[in-house]
This record gives sequence, C-alpha cells and structure tokens, in this order.
Amino acid sequence: MKLNGIIGYPVTPFSDDNTINLPVLKQMLDLLIENGCDAIAPLGSTGESAYLEWDEWCLVAKTSIESINKRVPVIIGISELTTDQAIKKAQIAQSYGADALMVIPISYWKLTDQEIFEYYQAIAQAMTLPIMIYNNPATSGVDMSPELIVSMFNNIVNITMVKESSGDIQRMHKIQELSKGELPFYNGCNPLALEALCAGASGWCTAAPNLLGQQPQQLIEHVKNGELEQAQKSFYQQLPLLRFIVTGGLPKTIKAGLQLKGFAAGSPRKPLFKATDVELNQLKQLLSEIEN
Amino acid sequence: MKLNGIIGYPVTPFSDDNTINLPVLKQMLDLLIENGCDAIAPLGSTGESAYLEWDEWCLVAKTSIESINKRVPVIIGISELTTDQAIKKAQIAQSYGADALMVIPISYWKLTDQEIFEYYQAIAQAMTLPIMIYNNPATSGVDMSPELIVSMFNNIVNITMVKESSGDIQRMHKIQELSKGELPFYNGCNPLALEALCAGASGWCTAAPNLLGQQPQQLIEHVKNGELEQAQKSFYQQLPLLRFIVTGGLPKTIKAGLQLKGFAAGSPRKPLFKATDVELNQLKQLLSEIEN
Amino acid sequence: MKLNGIIGYPVTPFSDDNTINLPVLKQMLDLLIENGCDAIAPLGSTGESAYLEWDEWCLVAKTSIESINKRVPVIIGISELTTDQAIKKAQIAQSYGADALMVIPISYWKLTDQEIFEYYQAIAQAMTLPIMIYNNPATSGVDMSPELIVSMFNNIVNITMVKESSGDIQRMHKIQELSKGELPFYNGCNPLALEALCAGASGWCTAAPNLLGQQPQQLIEHVKNGELEQAQKSFYQQLPLLRFIVTGGLPKTIKAGLQLKGFAAGSPRKPLFKATDVELNQLKQLLSEIEN
Amino acid sequence: MKLNGIIGYPVTPFSDDNTINLPVLKQMLDLLIENGCDAIAPLGSTGESAYLEWDEWCLVAKTSIESINKRVPVIIGISELTTDQAIKKAQIAQSYGADALMVIPISYWKLTDQEIFEYYQAIAQAMTLPIMIYNNPATSGVDMSPELIVSMFNNIVNITMVKESSGDIQRMHKIQELSKGELPFYNGCNPLALEALCAGASGWCTAAPNLLGQQPQQLIEHVKNGELEQAQKSFYQQLPLLRFIVTGGLPKTIKAGLQLKGFAAGSPRKPLFKATDVELNQLKQLLSEIEN
Repeated sequence: MKLNGIIGYPVTPFSDDNTINLPVLKQMLDLLIENGCDAIAPLGSTGESAYLEWDEWCLVAKTSIESINKRVPVIIGISELTTDQAIKKAQIAQSYGADALMVIPISYWKLTDQEIFEYYQAIAQAMTLPIMIYNNPATSGVDMSPELIVSMFNNIVNITMVKESSGDIQRMHKIQELSKGELPFYNGCNPLALEALCAGASGWCTAAPNLLGQQPQQLIEHVKNGELEQAQKSFYQQLPLLRFIVTGGLPKTIKAGLQLKGFAAGSPRKPLFKATDVELNQLKQLLSEIEN
Repeated sequence: MKLNGIIGYPVTPFSDDNTINLPVLKQMLDLLIENGCDAIAPLGSTGESAYLEWDEWCLVAKTSIESINKRVPVIIGISELTTDQAIKKAQIAQSYGADALMVIPISYWKLTDQEIFEYYQAIAQAMTLPIMIYNNPATSGVDMSPELIVSMFNNIVNITMVKESSGDIQRMHKIQELSKGELPFYNGCNPLALEALCAGASGWCTAAPNLLGQQPQQLIEHVKNGELEQAQKSFYQQLPLLRFIVTGGLPKTIKAGLQLKGFAAGSPRKPLFKATDVELNQLKQLLSEIEN
Repeated sequence: MKLNGIIGYPVTPFSDDNTINLPVLKQMLDLLIENGCDAIAPLGSTGESAYLEWDEWCLVAKTSIESINKRVPVIIGISELTTDQAIKKAQIAQSYGADALMVIPISYWKLTDQEIFEYYQAIAQAMTLPIMIYNNPATSGVDMSPELIVSMFNNIVNITMVKESSGDIQRMHKIQELSKGELPFYNGCNPLALEALCAGASGWCTAAPNLLGQQPQQLIEHVKNGELEQAQKSFYQQLPLLRFIVTGGLPKTIKAGLQLKGFAAGSPRKPLFKATDVELNQLKQLLSEIEN
Repeated sequence: MKLNGIIGYPVTPFSDDNTINLPVLKQMLDLLIENGCDAIAPLGSTGESAYLEWDEWCLVAKTSIESINKRVPVIIGISELTTDQAIKKAQIAQSYGADALMVIPISYWKLTDQEIFEYYQAIAQAMTLPIMIYNNPATSGVDMSPELIVSMFNNIVNITMVKESSGDIQRMHKIQELSKGELPFYNGCNPLALEALCAGASGWCTAAPNLLGQQPQQLIEHVKNGELEQAQKSFYQQLPLLRFIVTGGLPKTIKAGLQLKGFAAGSPRKPLFKATDVELNQLKQLLSEIEN
C-alpha cells in the first residue's frame, strides 16, 4: 500500500443533542471524494477522535468505512492514552474493513522513546493493517524524533508511513535521509504544504478540501509538473485560509466553514467552542477572497 | 474549608492481571495518614487518574473515601478531556462523599481562556463541593495563567484553592498579588517545596510521603517556625529524591520505591514502564542516603 | 574574600552630549553606600557596560574605584566578546585597585562549555583578583549550567563566586549541591530575591537600592533572623517595582526613577530609549505605593 | 539595486599572530567569485564581524571592496550594539565604495520594535546605500518579526532587502504576503535553502560556496528551471554538509574546510575554538561523499 496525493480529513458532525449526525457524516465523506481526495482519514484531529466516547468512535469508524465503500482507501485515526485501548480500537477498525490506521500516542506522563516504541509494536502485533505514525506534539504532548520514527519503520513490520505535523521541515529532511528515501512522509502542517511537497513529501494530510474544494489537489499537480510559479501562486492564495483554520483549531474552523457552505456539521464538543460571529465573518471574507 | 500542610498523593496499585488492587490501595491510604498527611488526594497524576477506565476510576474513588473514613479530608482528582465527562465524575465523587475536587482540564486542541473558564464553571454549577484548580501544563497541555486562575476564583463560587505545578515561583507571587492573598495556593512541584512555602504557600501537594515518611511534614514545620537553617537542611536532604521522582515520572518512581519498602503496588499502566533495575538501584541509594 | 548581603549596581550617567557625567556618577556611588550596600558593582548590566567605548569603560572603572575609596569592596563588571579584550580589561581593573571582577561572556556564535571554560581560565591566569562568574543568558546569549559553573569553581583558582540571573531557583539548588555548599551564589534576578535568600544565597546583586533605599537590605535582615512573615511582607511590597524595573530594562527604568528622585542620570545610550511619560507615571505610582 | 542568486560569505583569515591575513583574504574573495557568487558579503557572521576591533573591521572592508573591484556587488556587514557605532561604520563602508550594507542589530538589553526601527532609520539617514535587514536571532539576540521588517521596508527609504536566518519558513511567507511580494527576501539558513527558493526567495546568502564550489549555484538553477527532482537531489546531497557547518559554527567549520582545501585561513578568534581532529575528519568525510 503506497498512498499519494491528498489525504482528506472529515469532521465528526454532531446533532443538537450532541449525538453523531450520521447523515451529515456521509455528506462529509462524499464531499471529500468529490473534491478529489486520494484517501480519507476519519477520526483524526479534525474528527475530534479524542473527544468521542468509545461507542461513538466505533459508530463513526463503521459508518465511514461502509459509506466510503472502497471508492478510496480509508485510514482510521486512533489517539489513545493506554496501549490496551489503542490495541482494541485497532482490532475493531480492522474488523470493520479499514485499509490502514493512523496512530498517535497521547501522553499524560511523558513517554520515553522505548515506551513509544513498545506502544506501536504492541498495536502492530495485534492486527495486520499498515500503520501511519502520526507525530503532532502540539496536540498530543508526544514528540517523536525522526530517529525514533525511522527506527520504528525499520523494526516494526506494519509501520509503513509517517504523517509529520510538527511544522518543522528539517524533520522531513531527516526522515528522508535516515530512511534513504524509503519511508514515505506526509505533511500534516497546512501552512507548510508547498515546501513539504517540494522537499519530497508523498502527500498532504489535510482538512482543507472541506472548504477549498480541489485547490489543494491542484497545488500538488503543479508541484508534480515542476510548475513552480503556478504552485507558488496557488499556495499563497490558499495560505491565509490554511493559517486561519490551523490557528483557530480545525474542528471549530472547518465546522464553521461547512456551516457557511450550508452543511449542518454542528459545533465541536465542549469544552471546545464553536466559532464566534467575528470568526465566521473573517472566514467568509477569506473564502470569498480565494474564490475570486 | 481551608486546607493546610501536606496533601498526600497515593498511587493506584494494579494486580498482575492489571485490575485495581484494593487491599494494597487501602494500605497506601493508611501509610499516608500514618505519615502525617493533612489531606489525601486519590486519583491525581500520581494515581494515574487519566489512565483508568471509567469503572476503575469510580472504584478507586469510592474505596478511597470509604477507607479514609473521615480521618482526613479527601480530595478527588478529575482529569477529563470533555466537559460532560468531567461533570459526571464530579457528581459521582460528591455522591461518594468526597470533601473536595481537584480538577485539571486535559487538552487535545488548545483551549482558550474562555473555554477553560466555562469548563470549570459548568463543573462547579453541577455540584456543591469546593474545587481546587490544578495547573500542570507539562502533563495536561493546558497552561492557566495566574490572571485566569484568580478570575475564576473571583467569579465561580466553589473555586476555593489552586495547586500550581508549573514550577514557576513567579506564578505564585502573581496569584498572591492578584487575589490580595485571598486565594490559597499549594505547591505541586516537589523541587520547589522550600521556596513555595517561604513565599506563602498554604501547603504542599506531594507523593513524597509515600517514600519519605514524615520528612515533608517536618520541612513545613521548620518553615512555619522560622527555623530557616533547619528548613534548608531538611530540604536539601530530600531534594535529590524529590528530583528523581519527578524526573522519572511519579507513578513509576513512587511504585518502585513502595516495592523497595515491601508494598505490592505493581507497575504503572502501559505504555508507561516500570522502573528498570538501574533505576531501582539509584532509588535505593537515594533512599539510604536520606535515612542516614 | 567572602561577600555577603547587598551588592549594589549603579547606572552610568550620561550628560546631554552623551559623555560620562562624572559628578553624577559619584553621587550614584554615594547613594548606594548610604543605602547600606555591602559592596558595589560598577559596569554591570545596569551600568550599560556593554554599550561603552573602551575609554569610557576605563574612565568609569577608575573614577568609581577612586570615589568609593575602600568604603566598601568594588566589583568591576566585564562583558566582552573576545578573550583578549576581556583579559585587557581585567588587567586594567586590577591596576586601578578593584577588589574583584564580575565576568560575563558575551556570545555571537554560541560557545561550547570548553570554550567558556578557557575564556574564564585565560582571564583568571592574567591577573590575581577574585572572579565572580555572571550567568545571565537573557542578556548575554550564553547560558552556563550549574555543572559548568561548579567545574570552573573547582578548577580555576581565582573563581570564587557566582551571580545567577537566569531566574531559575533550581540552578541555585544544583550549585549548592554540586559544590557541597562551598561556592557562594548570589541572586541576580530581582523578583526571585525572597526565595533565593531562603534557599541559601549569600547575597543579592541588585540595582533596587537606587530607588528603594534600605528596603532590600531589610529583606535580607528579616530572612537572616528567621522572620519569615516580615520577610514576605517586605518582599511582596517591593515586588511590583522589582518586576517593573526588570521588565522595562534596568538602565531605562533605574535612570527614570533616579530622575524622579532629582538626580541627573540622563538617558540610556541609543538604541535604548529613555522611559516614556506613561512609564514615568507608572513608576511614580509604584514608588509612592511602596513608601506608604 | 536588485540582487539575485548566491550571495557568498568569505571568512576573515587571521595569521598566527592574530592579525588579518590580507593575501589570504584576497584569495578567499577570488574563490567565491570563481565559484559563481552573484554578490559577496564580507564581514558577516561567517566573517567574524562582531569579533574584530575597529581598525580591523575597516581594513577588511576596504581591502575587500578594492580586491573585488566591481567584479560583483559588495555588501558590507555591520553588527554593532550602539546606534552611533553602526552609523560610523555605515559611513565608512560607503566612503570605501560598498554597494550595499547588511545590518544586524546586536542586543544586550532586549530592544523594542520602536527601538529597532529608530536604529535602522538613523543608519539609513546617515548615508545613501541600500540596506539589507539581517534577522538572525540565534546570534544577535534580536528577533525581528515579519511585521516589523515590512514596516521598516515601507517607511525607511534605503531599506530594500531582507536576509531571514531564523530558519522559519513561515516568516518568509509572511514577508511575501505583507509586502505583496515587493520586498525581496534572501534565505540565510543553509538547511532551508531548497524550500526558501521554492517559496520565492530572491537568493541564498551562504558561506557554502567556500567548500562546495558551484553546487549552491546549481541548486538555484534547478529550482529556476522547475527541475524539482534534480533540485531535490542536489539539495539532499549538500544537506549533511550544510547542517554540519551551521551546527559547528560557520567560522570554525568553514575555516576548517578551507584548511583541508589548502588555504591558510587560520583559526577563529578566541574564545571560539578551531575544529578538533575529530571534526576535521568528519568534515573530510562529508566533503568526499559530496564529490563522489
């Protein structure tokens, strides 16, 4: 399994009674496929994976896999504090028919490299799906060095990809070097998309297609074709919005943008707030500037 | 309710089958009371609160309150990502007879001050116990400024105390100033114990009495009596061990020390490791140096 | 030579034509002695040592030593980028009759521990005065660990003291432990004065006596006498001003305060600004609150 | 004046008696021109500008300008703590026939944005050469935001370029956006060269041509031609060496590499060390890997 291009991240829509809104969830998945995503990753940071109760997480995983129905590969996100819970979710995702897992260790007490290694190893040994390591220290509190990541790639058989969201391009350089170009890395920091692709990223993991349609896909095409001037133009056009959605927190800002586009994606789960009127207006303005 | 002195933190002991070891839990609580703790806080960071499943958390809370049986006040720790889960646990703790709650918001997406404020407010309005704000950015990923803390103290009626674990003494100064000395603050950073007490802390929240017996209590006494030279001597004697238990992670190091003292406290929950033989030997050495 | 108590830092007053104002410099030194300083350190951070041309630095050193005239010990500050220039100034200060040197290495390219070690060693071998290591990473860009500091104390014969201005009380603990209490440490972070003294600091290096008269000295007395309640009261009274002078930059804020007190201390050297009217009013307010 | 391409940075060679080695300095300048540099910047960070005495700085500036003799533009580096000294050097550089200045404010006391603005303004008003703002917080202790940089570009007439060495690609994005593409930015962080060029940098300020010949120039050509695959290949080939020279400090590592190539560039000025035998061997190895 070798993924390329745009890996799209859906939100998890809630109804007014705070339960999962399944019909809108299906709309969200269709929207990402229409916008040209090469794969879809439900239950990521954007999908508020960490905020869902156990049954809710299972429901979203199952519904997403069934609804996508093999139109594109499905990567299920797992963000658990304990090894046992992570293993259980991995096995559930496999039983539902997921194509791959994206796994981020969450920390309360800081983890040593060896603790992280065994966390991934235990999950990998408990099922057979390929695993994408997900490094996002700002949300998870766990920062995995390129050295650790490549060591897990070399030593744990199902680990086959890494999503780097630290925003530090030097990490990608190091992964490229240490793995001699063998470990595909994906950019998870939206405002770094242009440079990550230029540095050799296999793809871009992003919630942006929810709001920007096929523009992220077009940026990739320009880079692939060596059309650097057009790539720059496309990137700088998207950049203010990319920065806005990251700074404001993806669940809040993506749900707000979807609301502006007429989808009933609901609010993020408390304590997270929904967008204020001021934020909605900023977002409207940013979207209208991109479309013109 | 105005607490003073040592607030002791028990571990949550696991049996070999990874279930809660209730008999040892009771031993742990008795040990802290024998060592002179003025209050006990089960289900804190030391107690691996964040790593327990729902039923386990309830079992530890209930058992602890019953076993302590009003010998000292009981402060139950709550560390939940969502507001709803935090509220449920707060109500459960009250129903079991807890004397107070220690609440730390956990983050995945960064929280704004207003989101944190409403998180605490929602919990406070759902029950009647006094709440100790717990600020520990290194574990929770949430950093609450003195300004925010004092604002919550001023505006939310059950908020009556704060445990500051950032390790920055200037935060304590600021809390003291902004609240005009009205908001009692407790030190949660072990290697800062001497200075926090000298700066006016009402108490010291610590797992150290598990391993150091009455020495933390004696440090408090020396400071209270203005015996600064003895306080320094006592502090510098305890300091290498205090640093060791913090650096290594409290669940691992305290459980290791308890094992050395003959208690079957078990290992921390995975992905956390238990102490290595090297670490056990270091700890043995540190403990023997203090006793001599 | 074993210093204790308050080491006072004078400003370097400039006339309107940007030359050194020698008569006011002498007033400044008298003021610090009247306010009970146990030693005086001209040409420190407060004295804009790094901003002076070679001849100016020599003039201030010479004038200060002559004017103090052995009423208290004089510690001359040296902050040079190159080893050769630092050596020359050290020899000049000795030839003028200084009692000790306070030496801070300035960095452009980051220095390794070994480079710092040889920097101090070369200075120490070029003259015979005792040297106070001065660690202030925020201004100098050089951060010396307790391990390095104590190693220099153990291996370089004239190094006899350290001024720690990082603001991290744990550094002081570590210096105390590593040197087994043999290396006297002085607090150089004003808002840490209470805690540093409680932790065993030999003294407080400060420009505060310029504006606060004998209050810093009184804080030391209270701590020495184990009068912790009065020490806290004194410290919290001084704290808003201590924080203000540090945050605003000592040359600007101390010169502004001296102006309010009627001294013609002039402005700091450009690019540094003098205090704005708003800052002057804040300072006036802070000073009046302390005096009442 | 609009520079493009490679701006090369010579070292300042010292003889064994620690004086400037003028014949080798001229060799250094010729080497950079032979290696295809589009402009040369003597007295930069690599040139140990901050470590030179006044007369030495003048000698290097004068000799370099005369020796380059208009073969390529000459940008003279100024790194002074006080405004007055910076003005004097700017005027001297102009009198010698420099084509432009690269100015970095050095800090001891942290500078406010307004202090930095007036620093640049005062220099700009004192002569007529174009100024390149140089932002390198790691060496200078001054961090200028994109907002401040673009504001100076908009309001100070001779400011026409910026060299960004913070290593943060997002700063370059912001400069591009805030100046609507009008302010040419140059990359000053060697391991960021590929991405900065892909993001629209006008050039690369680097000491690498001293050791890598025309390879930096070739990377620029590949990017300009949209040959991204070759650009990546070229960049990843140079990267281990680029990282090595930055991590070890440019004066030390570039002088070591020049020594390996047979030039008598001498050692950096103390307290800086020359390369150890271990470092020399690492460098030799890195250079041989690139050449094969």
